Amino acid sequence: MSTLFEKHHHRITQALRYCEERTYWSPFQESPSAKHHPSGAHEQAKKIFKELLGNPFPLKQPNTIGTVGKEISPYTQQPLGISYPKPDIEPLMDTAKNSQKEWTYRTEPKERVGVCLELIEQLSQNNFLNTYASMHTAGMSFMMGFAGSGANALDRGLEALAHAHKAMSNIPSHAKFTRSFARGPETTIDKSYHLVGRGVAVVVCCGTFPTWNAYPAIFANLATGNSVVLKPHPNGILPVAIVVQTCRRLLEELGYNPDIILLAADEPEDRITIPLLEHKYTAIIDFTGSPTFGSWIENNCNHALVYTETAGCNSVIIESTNNYDGMLHAIAHSLCLFSSQMCTSAQNIFIPQNGIQCNDEHISYDKIVDDLVAKIDKLTADPKIAAALCGCVMSPVTFTQLDTLREEAKKYNLVRDAHCFAHPQFPNASTATPMLVEVGIADSSLYQKEHFGPMAFIIRCPDADSAILQASQDAKNHGSIASYAYSVHEQYQDKIAEAFIDAGASIGFNLIAHLPINFSAAYSDFHVTGLNPAGNACLTDIAFVASRFRIVQIKRERI
Amino acid sequence: MSTLFEKHHHRITQALRYCEERTYWSPFQESPSAKHHPSGAHEQAKKIFKELLGNPFPLKQPNTIGTVGKEISPYTQQPLGISYPKPDIEPLMDTAKNSQKEWTYRTEPKERVGVCLELIEQLSQNNFLNTYASMHTAGMSFMMGFAGSGANALDRGLEALAHAHKAMSNIPSHAKFTRSFARGPETTIDKSYHLVGRGVAVVVCCGTFPTWNAYPAIFANLATGNSVVLKPHPNGILPVAIVVQTCRRLLEELGYNPDIILLAADEPEDRITIPLLEHKYTAIIDFTGSPTFGSWIENNCNHALVYTETAGCNSVIIESTNNYDGMLHAIAHSLCLFSSQMCTSAQNIFIPQNGIQCNDEHISYDKIVDDLVAKIDKLTADPKIAAALCGCVMSPVTFTQLDTLREEAKKYNLVRDAHCFAHPQFPNASTATPMLVEVGIADSSLYQKEHFGPMAFIIRCPDADSAILQASQDAKNHGSIASYAYSVHEQYQDKIAEAFIDAGASIGFNLIAHLPINFSAAYSDFHVTGLNPAGNACLTDIAFVASRFRIVQIKRERI
Repeated sequence: MSTLFEKHHHRITQALRYCEERTYWSPFQESPSAKHHPSGAHEQAKKIFKELLGNPFPLKQPNTIGTVGKEISPYTQQPLGISYPKPDIEPLMDTAKNSQKEWTYRTEPKERVGVCLELIEQLSQNNFLNTYASMHTAGMSFMMGFAGSGANALDRGLEALAHAHKAMSNIPSHAKFTRSFARGPETTIDKSYHLVGRGVAVVVCCGTFPTWNAYPAIFANLATGNSVVLKPHPNGILPVAIVVQTCRRLLEELGYNPDIILLAADEPEDRITIPLLEHKYTAIIDFTGSPTFGSWIENNCNHALVYTETAGCNSVIIESTNNYDGMLHAIAHSLCLFSSQMCTSAQNIFIPQNGIQCNDEHISYDKIVDDLVAKIDKLTADPKIAAALCGCVMSPVTFTQLDTLREEAKKYNLVRDAHCFAHPQFPNASTATPMLVEVGIADSSLYQKEHFGPMAFIIRCPDADSAILQASQDAKNHGSIASYAYSVHEQYQDKIAEAFIDAGASIGFNLIAHLPINFSAAYSDFHVTGLNPAGNACLTDIAFVASRFRIVQIKRERI
Repeated sequence: MSTLFEKHHHRITQALRYCEERTYWSPFQESPSAKHHPSGAHEQAKKIFKELLGNPFPLKQPNTIGTVGKEISPYTQQPLGISYPKPDIEPLMDTAKNSQKEWTYRTEPKERVGVCLELIEQLSQNNFLNTYASMHTAGMSFMMGFAGSGANALDRGLEALAHAHKAMSNIPSHAKFTRSFARGPETTIDKSYHLVGRGVAVVVCCGTFPTWNAYPAIFANLATGNSVVLKPHPNGILPVAIVVQTCRRLLEELGYNPDIILLAADEPEDRITIPLLEHKYTAIIDFTGSPTFGSWIENNCNHALVYTETAGCNSVIIESTNNYDGMLHAIAHSLCLFSSQMCTSAQNIFIPQNGIQCNDEHISYDKIVDDLVAKIDKLTADPKIAAALCGCVMSPVTFTQLDTLREEAKKYNLVRDAHCFAHPQFPNASTATPMLVEVGIADSSLYQKEHFGPMAFIIRCPDADSAILQASQDAKNHGSIASYAYSVHEQYQDKIAEAFIDAGASIGFNLIAHLPINFSAAYSDFHVTGLNPAGNACLTDIAFVASRFRIVQIKRERI
């Protein structure tokens, strides 16, 4: 089966090359345009999606006791009506443990990497179906579903796989050790090195980006000889179920035990995440979700390796710009994109109370605020454009949080309220444009945490220096995955960079939205530093993969 | 200062090459023979050692409140009388934190690797002094001190450094990212990747091998941008203090802040390990020592990355051999070498009650036991040879444990008692030859744990299959760093190998003592699997270094 490795040799070689060069590359098609895809691919996927609705999902796996599934589409507010196997946790974990042993002991690392490359290729054929599944669970727009949850997510999966391959292929399978000791004769010892997985890996997927973090975890784990139990968000089962179904089908076709990948779905009122995480067979945990749960896992799941990606309060520091309109567009775009439900969405916008310089012009604080609001208004004025940009708000809880913040904002200044826009295709879609609350720099207890969804803060600050101090300390103490700064002064950029490096948080300067500033590019951007509270795992450095396997050594002296 | 990297370029390149080839290599001199060393080097070191006795150790470091030091030589039973700086923990940790920031933010990875290579070279000039220090603290023989605690320990340090260099050098310092998005114009973003250390690394050294585990931890930590606080065993301060002194002196000469490496010594009655481990600035812990303390750290020090090497119950499975005398010599040698105070020492010797085949001859169980005892007697008969082989027993506690086991053995069969031998140079040396207790396979509660020091078990087992099962399960559940098996049958070897791979424990077949079977070779042997309770860290895989640094990314769009 290492022929699969040969089949995809070029792809993994390219991936390794770009992980080192860190320039732009992707082997997957980001555009859903018909000209890039087989004839009828889109329509076929749409048809399959419709047929899935209201039916048991065609996934057969062992240790099933009935069904679960209470997903509701953020576009229609209707239940998807799809039922999934309800797992019997104890026997399911036994199954996962047994399949893991077989997988790790009966396959070579290269063989496993080859299988993963083939799985990735098959998943890439699913992108249209995955798009509809992501829309009607996570609430993504069509484009975000296709590119962000499809091509870009597969890129992250391939990137993690490349790192796993690299970490493993540095270790030879055999070595011949020859030396003499003191004045004795030469001794030759044949050594073999066996790379074995740690056990069962539980992958907890988030609701808003079901595949983006799941793919890296799945392929890092499978390649290094672990089995994977996927725990989707209760409203994000479908995209994950499609992944599990695709992988299991292919594994069977290839003659492998499909039980190295299993779905463990649940419902909002009957969660199974903690029993899975605490299970004695759980050797690895990959978690994407809230900072609260993430930090609980980091502190309570000592028995397992824990990789988290959570969230923080991403800042924007505005000091000066030579592209005022571009800057405002970039920030407004970040606040609107997928209704700010991304871990890279901007949240805390620091503006000096005395305004900023733009080329030779001085622009006042009030004007910046007004122009930003106007930019958001403009971006969301046309419901068709708003729909493509904002998608839906995934969870009803987010609307409750908008209400709470609106209430709290009475103490501050609500400069822009969130409002629904009429989705051109789905009249019941749960849409919302960004809410903007103006606060003082001292009101940090309000903005020093993630406000998930279309909520952001204009923070009036004495000057840019105080913004640096506040934003970098907030990143350090409360987390940040992506922060942003606008400054044309190199000296000032260096000051910000130094403060953020010291805070252990990454930052982007003068990003203008030709490319959405939220975009985190596989093979180029390191996503999550692990030095601040917004997660401990980085997509993808070698540390993300290196501990997922261990080395058992067999020595044989020649007799 | 990257000229230091250039200076040692050949050495690090060689180290990287041998880490991949995993054949035999060492750039350090294992032999203390005068012909390999500068004239007078040995005598000079002996003189320095004598001058150190009874005096304050010449180490100046900040945050000192008085002195500590109650080391007793296992050779003379006399206090060394050396006093060391007593650390004031809170300010010492502040110092370590501040120096770490400077070190990680003001140096490049390659520069740090260059400095570490120079430190290693300087430490290698110290091997004679380190030998005397190791003898009179750990109780090593002269040869073990010179080779095991000198050249072989430096090899492990260089190996870890090579891995750190490799993990860091795979990440470029800069990249240029260019792409267009949708139908927009091309955007170019300059990215820089900053590799930063995590903070303060506390390295807890063991008493019997002060440098062997310390060097890898020190160089993995320094190279990746962390500062190091070394906590020696209260009876093993001197070898560690010499390391700290050498490193600080050189760092100062090179113009670096020497406070990136600090000594934190204590006394048996007033230990400071736990406050150091629990300190909020402690970001990394490297621990070598008892399984009990190691597992406490693994379970209680969530705030830090934890790397442990502890111990387990190493087995010997005897099924058949074509070199009976060689096998017995190898086992007896392992039981005697450094009085079995090594993490690779054999402990549980499984012998089938119906005896074994050796070529065409059948050898009975009783004969094997008698011959093994005779072999030990022979190896230890000449006090001069015994002294070179066994060295001293480091801790008086070990004699208490010998007494306890002698008492317990009344329920079993004491086939060989431990006895002191008269050391030819040191009449008061705390010597002991191996105690051998014969038990049944069912008496597992006695042998399923480490008996530190010259204590081993002959385990009478129904057959070789039961030995495989027991030994592999014991390795899995109670830990093993190195186990051994003797079998001429390939099928049987495969069966044992499979059981041990499954148990996550390394094993050596048919090792005959031309090379001591305890020997774990840097660049070739992976030491500790991390899959059983005998520790979670491996010398040296990429996982040992990959998480010690993190990546902060700065992006700048071209304006």
